[in-house]
Amino acid sequence: MTIHYPNGTQYRPQPVNQPEHAKSALVKHGGRGMTLEQEINESNQYYLAHDIAVIHKKPTPIQIVKVDYPKRSAAVIREAYFRRPSTTDYNGIYRGRYIDFDAKETKEKTRFPLDNFHQHQVEHMRSCLKQGGICFGLIKFVTLDQLYLLKATDLINYWDAQGSAKGRKSIPLTAFQTLAIPIKYSLNPTIAYLDAVDQLI
Amino acid sequence: MTIHYPNGTQYRPQPVNQPEHAKSALVKHGGRGMTLEQEINESNQYYLAHDIAVIHKKPTPIQIVKVDYPKRSAAVIREAYFRRPSTTDYNGIYRGRYIDFDAKETKEKTRFPLDNFHQHQVEHMRSCLKQGGICFGLIKFVTLDQLYLLKATDLINYWDAQGSAKGRKSIPLTAFQTLAIPIKYSLNPTIAYLDAVDQLI
Repeated sequence: MTIHYPNGTQYRPQPVNQPEHAKSALVKHGGRGMTLEQEINESNQYYLAHDIAVIHKKPTPIQIVKVDYPKRSAAVIREAYFRRPSTTDYNGIYRGRYIDFDAKETKEKTRFPLDNFHQHQVEHMRSCLKQGGICFGLIKFVTLDQLYLLKATDLINYWDAQGSAKGRKSIPLTAFQTLAIPIKYSLNPTIAYLDAVDQLI
Repeated sequence: MTIHYPNGTQYRPQPVNQPEHAKSALVKHGGRGMTLEQEINESNQYYLAHDIAVIHKKPTPIQIVKVDYPKRSAAVIREAYFRRPSTTDYNGIYRGRYIDFDAKETKEKTRFPLDNFHQHQVEHMRSCLKQGGICFGLIKFVTLDQLYLLKATDLINYWDAQGSAKGRKSIPLTAFQTLAIPIKYSLNPTIAYLDAVDQLI
């Protein structure tokens, strides 16, 4: 017998045989509600504390216009503006190698829009690659709860192709599944992205 | 005949037989009035433009408390405070190597007071050295117009000795003359500090 709700839609029972990893994903980081930035910062703290790597997020660049110096207390910035960063957000050293990357989240389910990156960030990655650095993007499909390491060379290929006839304004998820390295969530570190970096060195 | 000013002090003619390098120093960078930070930033721009190295100063870390979002104009930070940085100010990549350093100016003429550095900056250098990074301080004796590259290992030796019986709260200029690498001013780049780094690699 088919059960109908008063509005006429058919009743569909909730699936109870969800795969284990999907359930634990919901509990573990969905539940903690961390942003990708927080996940990376936590992981970097773990890597630093265990002498594995020294990688930090750079502070947000600010243009300071007015500062008050009240007596007997700390200077207060009273007028300042956000500036566009001229580099990527994260850099440091791992296994003697220079590491440089940016982290981006998207709510899209089938593609990663390239306008998440800025021209100067791509140029910065190009410069670092020339010097022999390890450069990449950490891209999170938030809705799908999937995280990938995409090599800067692949990112730059898509970036440069935007202007051409066959170029696209985004990288399809299928390209990530082929080109990029998936990163699993764990307890310590939260995201073991340096395991993925090992595959680049 | 001795000439006296009305206040009774003796007239002393300005020395005219200044050594050539001192005069050119006065004209070249004294005249331009650049801080050490500006000199380094200019040099880094030169190194970047010539594909020699990618080294940037990190933005000043700020704790943002209040932001206004006026209609049709950029967000304005209305209350924020300076935070103490947890790393050194400069890092990047040169000849495939991770570079990490801090820059300090002193008006002292015979010694560099160690309290120009903070504990966390020294710990950060220690961590970077463990990973195989090239770490150092660029120390400028402003009054003497002398600039030195001091290896992080030497800096750390003095830092750690502070607590001991023979320890000092400063590094004598004579130690710089023995241990450190002097850096000359030039036109392009303003300070060729990577020439000194070449001696560390």
